Amino acid sequence: MQDDLTKTMRMNYLFDFYQGLLTDKQRSYLERYYLEDESLSEIAETFQVSRQAVYDNIRRTDELLEDYELKLGLLKKFEARQALLDQMKQNLNEQHSQELLKLIEQLESIE
Amino acid sequence: MQDDLTKTMRMNYLFDFYQGLLTDKQRSYLERYYLEDESLSEIAETFQVSRQAVYDNIRRTDELLEDYELKLGLLKKFEARQALLDQMKQNLNEQHSQELLKLIEQLESIE
Repeated sequence: MQDDLTKTMRMNYLFDFYQGLLTDKQRSYLERYYLEDESLSEIAETFQVSRQAVYDNIRRTDELLEDYELKLGLLKKFEARQALLDQMKQNLNEQHSQELLKLIEQLESIE
Repeated sequence: MQDDLTKTMRMNYLFDFYQGLLTDKQRSYLERYYLEDESLSEIAETFQVSRQAVYDNIRRTDELLEDYELKLGLLKKFEARQALLDQMKQNLNEQHSQELLKLIEQLESIE
């Protein structure tokens, strides 16, 4: 179960970064499966296809997202930036302007 | 000429961000044309193809890079982050630790 949860979180992130490169169908399936936590059967019923077809499609899209991450590394870069921003916040104290903190928060909001 | 220069700079950036999604051939042509400033004829000679074939390939790859930018917006996000980091540096003064400046520099080095 731990592995499933980790995988779901990772797929959520990868989906966020690379959804622009997916087809409408791939996007719909993944959104329902990972973000809205629908079951394969529910998705199959909605789209009037077999459960196996949904499973195969999602598995292939998972591989595609991992392939994009290998090629572009957006999640890896995001994590590197977040680690640095966390360090920056720890370095901030009352002597530092609130303006800086606002800028850091804005930086964090950019994927 | 101004437009050519702007286009070359933009293609250099887009190439940086999306080269992982290109084929070896697309990557070779673009690298030679935009980064190493080779002419279409020189590239054609190296690869033993017509000048027109090189031209068509580069034009299609340019469109592909612009399409990726439309879908993922990595250059746009990069520019937004750089603008915020510039503001942060302007907000820094001697009261702020050198540690913060180092972190900002590290952040700038991540695409």
